Amino acid sequence: MRLTNVNLADWIERVKAEIVSIGTEILLGEIVDTNAAFLAGQLPLLGIDLYFISAVGDNQHRLVDTLERAWQRSDLVITTGGLGPTQDDITREAIAELFGEKLTIDSGLAEGLRDFFNRHNLEMPPSNIKQASVIPSSQIAPNPQGTAPGWWVERDGRIIVAIPGPPREMQLMWEKEVFPRLRQKVGKVVIFSRTIKTFGLTEAKVDELVSPFLSMDNPTLATYAKPDGIQLRVTAKASDEDEARRIVTESEANVRAVLGDYVWGMDSDTLEVVVGKLLMAQGLTLATMESFTGGVLANIVASDPASSTYFKGGLIAYSEGAELAFGLDAQLLSSYGACSVEVAEAMSVIAREKLNANIGVAIAGVMKSTERQNRQVGTIFIGIDDGKIRQSFVRSYPGQHVQIKHRATTSALYELRKILS
Amino acid sequence: MRLTNVNLADWIERVKAEIVSIGTEILLGEIVDTNAAFLAGQLPLLGIDLYFISAVGDNQHRLVDTLERAWQRSDLVITTGGLGPTQDDITREAIAELFGEKLTIDSGLAEGLRDFFNRHNLEMPPSNIKQASVIPSSQIAPNPQGTAPGWWVERDGRIIVAIPGPPREMQLMWEKEVFPRLRQKVGKVVIFSRTIKTFGLTEAKVDELVSPFLSMDNPTLATYAKPDGIQLRVTAKASDEDEARRIVTESEANVRAVLGDYVWGMDSDTLEVVVGKLLMAQGLTLATMESFTGGVLANIVASDPASSTYFKGGLIAYSEGAELAFGLDAQLLSSYGACSVEVAEAMSVIAREKLNANIGVAIAGVMKSTERQNRQVGTIFIGIDDGKIRQSFVRSYPGQHVQIKHRATTSALYELRKILS
Repeated sequence: MRLTNVNLADWIERVKAEIVSIGTEILLGEIVDTNAAFLAGQLPLLGIDLYFISAVGDNQHRLVDTLERAWQRSDLVITTGGLGPTQDDITREAIAELFGEKLTIDSGLAEGLRDFFNRHNLEMPPSNIKQASVIPSSQIAPNPQGTAPGWWVERDGRIIVAIPGPPREMQLMWEKEVFPRLRQKVGKVVIFSRTIKTFGLTEAKVDELVSPFLSMDNPTLATYAKPDGIQLRVTAKASDEDEARRIVTESEANVRAVLGDYVWGMDSDTLEVVVGKLLMAQGLTLATMESFTGGVLANIVASDPASSTYFKGGLIAYSEGAELAFGLDAQLLSSYGACSVEVAEAMSVIAREKLNANIGVAIAGVMKSTERQNRQVGTIFIGIDDGKIRQSFVRSYPGQHVQIKHRATTSALYELRKILS
Repeated sequence: MRLTNVNLADWIERVKAEIVSIGTEILLGEIVDTNAAFLAGQLPLLGIDLYFISAVGDNQHRLVDTLERAWQRSDLVITTGGLGPTQDDITREAIAELFGEKLTIDSGLAEGLRDFFNRHNLEMPPSNIKQASVIPSSQIAPNPQGTAPGWWVERDGRIIVAIPGPPREMQLMWEKEVFPRLRQKVGKVVIFSRTIKTFGLTEAKVDELVSPFLSMDNPTLATYAKPDGIQLRVTAKASDEDEARRIVTESEANVRAVLGDYVWGMDSDTLEVVVGKLLMAQGLTLATMESFTGGVLANIVASDPASSTYFKGGLIAYSEGAELAFGLDAQLLSSYGACSVEVAEAMSVIAREKLNANIGVAIAGVMKSTERQNRQVGTIFIGIDDGKIRQSFVRSYPGQHVQIKHRATTSALYELRKILS
């Protein structure tokens, strides 16, 4: 089939894609094939169905074999890797063999390569010239980031696209060259989706709340359990972007209405950035104090690139001595124990006052099952103090220590967000 | 071919393995296929060559097609996923179709399943019974972690192994059931390898130092660039484990000798655990103070499960106000600037004294290029104080902010390790 000038229904039914990841390092387990996962996540945005992913090493015979199979059963084949300058890099050779075409050096590309090395004051290794190879069927996809151009080959109404393997080069070439070109090919089909992010509800409870929407056809609604809560993806297909957006926006509003305050963000939002924006909008600063999370809270807050605007700093009390050294009242500690809402609140006050911030957030919890009054591991205590009101929250999470630390931090940021909103 | 009773040379030349990862969530880009990478990393330990990895969705026709292809070209096929209790889980059905065998319920397995649910006080959903399905050729691999048993099928001298998809279940079944069984099959071949971990040298420099060893045949030596430094893997093949160990141990000593003090650990060692062991052996405690790393140092120290024994706590000064609030001398700060060895040393003293620890470690550095005296981003200052000697180190790292934070932390732990050794 030709991808051009097909109508919506035909196209949606018929375009089958396949990804071929090339590189012996994948087969040796030295790298995880994140490229395939990235591309797999992109194809639904074009409404393209992915049926197979294959990984194959730097062996021309096995690569040609894999490409032949893919070419037989798929309309669109996307390869990553094997476009470098060394003898191991055999993707161009394999595609040429697949089609029985001859490789030649393109003089324009060769000049571009030499320019690239000149611009960077480097001598071009002779082997690099192979990156200027083409076959009669290949069109070139420029590489915004490196020396290896991509190939776009259309033959017999099918397409094979060869993209470099380094993830940054791959993603840039996909975004700037391949995705727009495929979007043009697929013409009038637009897939648009938004993700609603919640915290504080189980997946079963979310399913129950949104059950009237789960049977929708266009848009569709799907739920996913993630470390930072349950996410819901609303996806619409339409003949233009405005229409797809309109369909999604309408359902999104209905879904958000039943989920209420449990929704903390959309799409690529992270809790720390959401909280950071609220703090900056209100001109507030933040300080933290934590015990068993050992710096995870401060670390996540500081991972917001804008955090130096509002994050003053943090205290990590990983021992009882440290709690006292930071000014925790010994009597309070002995009356209530280190794992208590009273101590969590006192910690939030210490963070706020010590670091001269507007808001202090604290997390206390059980380090080991034998420690700290034998309270159950996984029970965490959150304190938040803004100088006028002190609040505390008790939560309980299952799982390994490292997961509990992250859940506790997510929980603290989620409660802080509610207070700031 | 039969895997049993083959000799070393035959077997090494001839066993070709293939991994088939099953699940629509892989093809939608919702999960990254880390299972394939894990298994790919394990097969070299058995001396088995992996030629292909394929991912396919929950579609019986396409799965059978993929398995047929794999069965034609490979001696060992390992599938992950599709062993759950729902209609989507079709691995058992596909293998039965591949061999033209009939699925039946094994009464022993069915009883085991019911027991499992009883033990957890749960009612068994009727659909779960399909997890007790077998075919005449299948042997059962018990699941130490969940309800889905694995399958081990030997036919025509080839093997297909079906393992559940959840990574923890997959890894446990691999370690406890599949790996030992394959090792038995492969008989007298033993592959043994050790990894030497270094920090502070470029990959090119490591290559230069170990170049006499890079051409060795048995053991082989390979270098890998990792976020925590350059690693070297020494791998030997032999007819028994003692011999393989002997070969590795001998070369390992030679390689370590030329790398000297740059070697900080072996195999699965992490710097934080290595440092933690040295601290515990000497009965010392540790405290941290950090600025731009925003809690990464404390967080990595606290990720050692034994850290509550020696880690007192940490201070995070994410603003100049915080540095002063924690007791940094204002005059020192204005004379030398926050990015200086003088301030890094003073911070290490504050951490040690404030938290009553034996050793204080501090990291200072540039947050943004416009801040802090326009010193170059990526320049970091490490201070270490043990109450008698104060030491400082200046290092410079390229990369993104998040990478620099981790490099700085690795660097600080590496220097601390040298001082403790």
